[in-house]
Amino acid sequence: MTRLDSAIRRLTAQRDVLDWASREIAPSGLVLELGLGNGRTYDHLRTRLAGREIFAFERCLAAHPDCIPPDGRLIFGDIFETLPIFIEKHGEHSAALVHADIGSGDEELNRALARDLSPLIERVLQPGGLLIADRAFDLPSCRDISAQTGVLKNRYFVHRRE
Amino acid sequence: MTRLDSAIRRLTAQRDVLDWASREIAPSGLVLELGLGNGRTYDHLRTRLAGREIFAFERCLAAHPDCIPPDGRLIFGDIFETLPIFIEKHGEHSAALVHADIGSGDEELNRALARDLSPLIERVLQPGGLLIADRAFDLPSCRDISAQTGVLKNRYFVHRRE
Ligand SMILES: C[S@@+](CC[C@H](N)C(=O)[O-])C[C@H]1O[C@@H](n2cnc3c(N)ncnc32)[C@H](O)[C@@H]1O
Ligand code: NI
Ligand code: NI
Repeated sequence: MTRLDSAIRRLTAQRDVLDWASREIAPSGLVLELGLGNGRTYDHLRTRLAGREIFAFERCLAAHPDCIPPDGRLIFGDIFETLPIFIEKHGEHSAALVHADIGSGDEELNRALARDLSPLIERVLQPGGLLIADRAFDLPSCRDISAQTGVLKNRYFVHRRE
Repeated sequence: MTRLDSAIRRLTAQRDVLDWASREIAPSGLVLELGLGNGRTYDHLRTRLAGREIFAFERCLAAHPDCIPPDGRLIFGDIFETLPIFIEKHGEHSAALVHADIGSGDEELNRALARDLSPLIERVLQPGGLLIADRAFDLPSCRDISAQTGVLKNRYFVHRRE
């Protein structure tokens, strides 16, 4: 499998899981995009979930101009600083869906990131809330339901808060 | 169509055309990758065309370490400086396949690039040689055979030198 093949596979898995989550999401609760990046998945989420409150977190704005969230919906800065403040403002367990795609090419760093992020994810997800991510997280209050989405194994992960 | 959809469509068209060209390429002649980028399509080409001489041109090296060409096969610098020197060294009409994917988000710049690149493409392609690119080029000695590849219209383009 070439790097081109694997890029196609990764983006397709990402889209399939976002589409799945757009159907499964609870009727109320916030949507959080952790890592806006170039805005591709944000664009997908806002299209699939028109009318929902979607907040995007990013510390280094590089998104396509069309894909920048409206005023108040872009949370600029390091997630480890901004997410706790966000939770204080919007309340614990206020999110119906969190998409975490903040990884880079550095696998060790990615693992550390997921580990450090886990307690914040636990605090922000509402009961029944979904975390979708490019890796498995270690979340005591959640169940890994990746197998139920029908998406390629080990490509994209889904956890549901109990 | 979201930006995620369109990224998937673009990469898939790219792969389909590269695969097509790998079957159609003449048995001899050089392969040129204009714009190494992150090395995805270079990786695809070297896998599909194992044993062929593939040169990658890039002025700002950012490829994944696995996808950097071996010694002598990475032509570092601005294509408009390096390609004429390459042609002098390897001869006019020495290339069986040129893949040009050097565009950026700036459509006007991309058009200018394609226009300025055209005479060099004409000089380097061998008779029957293929140019595959993310846009149509204006090449008097070539025919646009994009429709023959079976790949999604207006996504990826193929020209064959007469
Ligand atoms: C893989 S990209 C996201 C791509 C995005 N999902 C898309 O489809 O375009 C990861 C992004 O996360 C951001 N990021 C990584 N760590 C972060 C942190 N601690 N705080 C805020 N943003 C972060 C990076 O700047 C980068 O833009
Ligand atoms: Ni709690
Ligand atoms: Ni000539």
